[in-house]
Amino acid sequence: MSSSIIRQLSPVPLSRVTIQDSFWAPRQEINRRITIPAIYRRLKETGHIEQLKLEWKPGMPNPPHIFRESELAKWIEAVSYSLVTHPGEKLEALLDEIIGLLAKAQQPDGYLNAYFTVVEPGKRWMNLRDAHELYCAGHLVEAAVAHYNATGKRSLLDVMCRYADYIDSVFGPGPGQKRGYCGHPEIELALIKLYCTTGEPRYLRLSQFFVEERGKQPHYFDQEARARGENPADFWAKSYAYSQSHLPVRAQTEAVGHAVRAMYLYCATTDLALETGDETLLQTCERLYESVCHRRMYVTGGIGSDHNIEGFTSDYDLPNESAYAETCAAIGLFLWMHRMLHIACDGRYTDVMERCLFNGILSGISLTGDRFFYENPLAVSRQREIFWRDPLHRQEWYAVACCPPNIARVIASLGAYIYAESDTDAIVHLYVQGSGTLHVAGQKVIVRQATQYPWDGVVKITVETERSANFGLKLRIPGWCRHATLTVNGQAWAVAPDRGYVRIQRFWNAGDEAVLTMAIPIERVYAHPQVAANRGCVALQRGPVIYCLEGVDNGDNLHLVALPRTATLEAQFEKDLLGGGVTIHGEVLRAVDSQTEMQILYSTVPPTYQPFYFKAVPYYAWDNRDTGDMLVWIHELEA
Amino acid sequence: MSSSIIRQLSPVPLSRVTIQDSFWAPRQEINRRITIPAIYRRLKETGHIEQLKLEWKPGMPNPPHIFRESELAKWIEAVSYSLVTHPGEKLEALLDEIIGLLAKAQQPDGYLNAYFTVVEPGKRWMNLRDAHELYCAGHLVEAAVAHYNATGKRSLLDVMCRYADYIDSVFGPGPGQKRGYCGHPEIELALIKLYCTTGEPRYLRLSQFFVEERGKQPHYFDQEARARGENPADFWAKSYAYSQSHLPVRAQTEAVGHAVRAMYLYCATTDLALETGDETLLQTCERLYESVCHRRMYVTGGIGSDHNIEGFTSDYDLPNESAYAETCAAIGLFLWMHRMLHIACDGRYTDVMERCLFNGILSGISLTGDRFFYENPLAVSRQREIFWRDPLHRQEWYAVACCPPNIARVIASLGAYIYAESDTDAIVHLYVQGSGTLHVAGQKVIVRQATQYPWDGVVKITVETERSANFGLKLRIPGWCRHATLTVNGQAWAVAPDRGYVRIQRFWNAGDEAVLTMAIPIERVYAHPQVAANRGCVALQRGPVIYCLEGVDNGDNLHLVALPRTATLEAQFEKDLLGGGVTIHGEVLRAVDSQTEMQILYSTVPPTYQPFYFKAVPYYAWDNRDTGDMLVWIHELEA
Repeated sequence: MSSSIIRQLSPVPLSRVTIQDSFWAPRQEINRRITIPAIYRRLKETGHIEQLKLEWKPGMPNPPHIFRESELAKWIEAVSYSLVTHPGEKLEALLDEIIGLLAKAQQPDGYLNAYFTVVEPGKRWMNLRDAHELYCAGHLVEAAVAHYNATGKRSLLDVMCRYADYIDSVFGPGPGQKRGYCGHPEIELALIKLYCTTGEPRYLRLSQFFVEERGKQPHYFDQEARARGENPADFWAKSYAYSQSHLPVRAQTEAVGHAVRAMYLYCATTDLALETGDETLLQTCERLYESVCHRRMYVTGGIGSDHNIEGFTSDYDLPNESAYAETCAAIGLFLWMHRMLHIACDGRYTDVMERCLFNGILSGISLTGDRFFYENPLAVSRQREIFWRDPLHRQEWYAVACCPPNIARVIASLGAYIYAESDTDAIVHLYVQGSGTLHVAGQKVIVRQATQYPWDGVVKITVETERSANFGLKLRIPGWCRHATLTVNGQAWAVAPDRGYVRIQRFWNAGDEAVLTMAIPIERVYAHPQVAANRGCVALQRGPVIYCLEGVDNGDNLHLVALPRTATLEAQFEKDLLGGGVTIHGEVLRAVDSQTEMQILYSTVPPTYQPFYFKAVPYYAWDNRDTGDMLVWIHELEA
Repeated sequence: MSSSIIRQLSPVPLSRVTIQDSFWAPRQEINRRITIPAIYRRLKETGHIEQLKLEWKPGMPNPPHIFRESELAKWIEAVSYSLVTHPGEKLEALLDEIIGLLAKAQQPDGYLNAYFTVVEPGKRWMNLRDAHELYCAGHLVEAAVAHYNATGKRSLLDVMCRYADYIDSVFGPGPGQKRGYCGHPEIELALIKLYCTTGEPRYLRLSQFFVEERGKQPHYFDQEARARGENPADFWAKSYAYSQSHLPVRAQTEAVGHAVRAMYLYCATTDLALETGDETLLQTCERLYESVCHRRMYVTGGIGSDHNIEGFTSDYDLPNESAYAETCAAIGLFLWMHRMLHIACDGRYTDVMERCLFNGILSGISLTGDRFFYENPLAVSRQREIFWRDPLHRQEWYAVACCPPNIARVIASLGAYIYAESDTDAIVHLYVQGSGTLHVAGQKVIVRQATQYPWDGVVKITVETERSANFGLKLRIPGWCRHATLTVNGQAWAVAPDRGYVRIQRFWNAGDEAVLTMAIPIERVYAHPQVAANRGCVALQRGPVIYCLEGVDNGDNLHLVALPRTATLEAQFEKDLLGGGVTIHGEVLRAVDSQTEMQILYSTVPPTYQPFYFKAVPYYAWDNRDTGDMLVWIHELEA
């Protein structure tokens, strides 16, 4: 195995980071005060916690459900991250109580799944393709690791190690073991976290087994379907591409199938490439990165063009109104890119993280923190929705509630994505006011940021060292930024970024200050011409934030709005609108739609336009006011 | 009841019309020689004829199916029309044989439906919502009328009168009668044909009953569902709008639901307005005409934007790739507009007929006459199809085979749509070389057309009278025509059309000649700006023919092609291409899609273009060569 892959940098954990800005800090507070309690109430109501008591009997209402442990687990994970930055006895006690139920629900052999313990006790591991057992186990492992890191308590970690040990005994290449893997990847990345936390190499090997076994022939899902007396061809999704098990992982060249499954698998594959130094696995990740980010991703970082499989279709097939772009999928892409970043500190990956974070992820939660989007289309119009589906609005809960706790754990753990460290470098990936305590050059270095990002492009970085030391401060120059200047202690420093980062190598002393000034104009963004859905259209972006038009500002029928290429657009900070933020304004055009012309469906007269003063708001903030149409890709007039 | 509706004109029947042109005459010959025999072979193979023997028993393969009589009936109707213009003993004998089977299949009480006689004999009339019994009866009635008109034989007509008499005894407002109606309208228009053929007013009254009863509360479909022990709310289509029975017909203001059902209902409603002089019913028809033709119709005359219900969605919701635009629906619209035309001789209706005929109907059959389209989308791209559905190609047959015999009957009966007559007027609706023998001004007037329509705009009309007579020759000035001149015996005649027709009133003598010269340039057509799918796009039309780009001529990825508004386009007659016809050519642009730029999915660089020589072909002729993408609405560059 090649060893040319080395961990170039390590993420700086949550516990060493503070966030004290006006964008994320209030969101983290809402997450703690509103979102986490709101999700808890729902988990209680729907029986997520009750089912752990294993008291359900046939004939009783509301049986345990196969997904529920995963949803509860993501909430435990979110709470744990929140406890890192904001310890609280009450929440910690609540976790103890729930962990107590999980421990009691664990079977003598280590198995832990309410559904297959009380509803279908004889069917354990009989339908890996559909039944999500290992998926639930994976999320519980992630929760256990987060809980341990937050509290130092081994209660859940021990439970999950026992479960992982049991899983390790059931699955593997050994005699009598099942050579299967989960239809929904997740356990793979979780086992690597467990390995990194416990140091137990069996967990790494089991993760490797799951990843390497996936998609091999004879196909495990065929075999287990036949063992259940089913015809494998009756699989509803028709192709194992749905679960990225159509081919061995190393042979996969295109992102296919259910987008969340894909992302979690690619996370684990990247982790394994890093942990094992496996070059060909890394090449697989890089190929899949190109497939997703160069050909199959919405401008919001959303992924998944198809509702039926909640996933990928074909290159450049990115319809706007029917986009699925599940919140969890954007989160998965964010998590995956963060892993790629620790193999190669390349701003391409950070750019995608930021694209997801400020757009396709953040759109998944209301400004009030208690309403969620599962799907994140890039256009909504009553014209289509009247018939095609119920109008899309943020909902308080979903029958499949993967997204709400997922976004809660991302927001709670945001600090973990801002900084990275290596022996020689202090790295700033994301600009968020606050600080990180890094281990660089054999000492503790505190990096402080002062910035109004994403609304403003000035970031003032102050470095606190214990003693003068020679190291590199790597600052990211985002892909959206076309002009940046830098000073160090007031002296100009050339901005010559290497793969998206400018490295300031010098002797750093306590109080040294670097100021990065990024020009942050309104940008007109064009899609690759192969994206048929966006031909003749433009999107507006400022910094990392993608904008949209909403009916509440512009009237409905937003397809009538046309943006001349030469129109002057203005950015304006509106502190009282949508939680405060920059909106985009300007005089553009709107197709005339008079009553007389309404009579004519087709004519030889081109549309005529009249002046129209428009306002665009950040995409993430849509559907937080009156209901109406929404549009990201605006018709552009070249003239 | 008001009597202000009068039949302004009467269609000239098939038997008095000849078609001798280079466009339709060869298609009619292919219809006779290829299509009708090909459909017959399929009907034999699939058991459409066999099932009439009523020999199927439980446990045997291939049971009778609820639709099949309708498909056979449309084929009988097509053969009958064909026999009018091309009598043939063999085909007539074949019809006799099949009619013999139908007569034997008829039950003693007059009932005639193989499925409910041998498969579910106890379930007759128990599910009008879904079971298509009256729909099948209606098509058999249409076939009987056509057969009688073609051959003078009463064999099928007598069978169907007996069936109609039985239906009349079962349904109606009387005591013990069912107050139901068919989920799929068709019987209503058929009964009016039967009334007009037999003079029996009970058939008119029964048609009226079915139309008037439709959609009343308490809802019949609710009642019969409960009687079957079902919950009416379980109806798969969720709303009775699917079958236009959500409201009483007179209260309907928007075209909704399954498009073919809508058209057949509107046909009957228009017939009833005409037969009964009912103004409010006519107003309903006019409202529905506006709903369909001003807001819910594709530029091809196709209707039905939604696959799931094969029908209408909302105003201006006309997506191109996912258009359903069933061939039968365009045929239904054509048939309905022909009925509207005989209430008011208004070229708006004829324009729609022609739009359907040359585009959305004709696309439904291959140039070879033996392959069919059920759906007629306005764009096809591999990008979407790879995932979204199997690539769309003409097929030899469909499991639900409504379209093939439907288009066969339209082509066979085309002569019936060309002329109309009244005491005072000889009317030419469609320009087709050949002749019509009309009854005008108390004598027989032969109107002869010489034209190369639709490729050329010159139509030479020669009138043959028995004696000099004062009447109006009404010639249609199509909606697509923006400049026309007219001469009568070489003298200019002012073209001042009234509602789409210029009326030449004078004393006509044998041999008088009118020459209509319509400018027939290539037109750029724009959709109403509310049609979001077509913003920034243009379609090409020449005369009544809508054009499309095909991959075989232009390469795939047709969304890359851009048509500058100022580009010079040229029409060229290509006699050896696609059965002979005018194609459109010109130097336009194509977005650059180089390998380097392939890397970038989103950028601030607008697309660049390079010169591209394109060729557009008539939409009706697409998918007759190598497979590939297709596009009607082309991206337009205004600059």
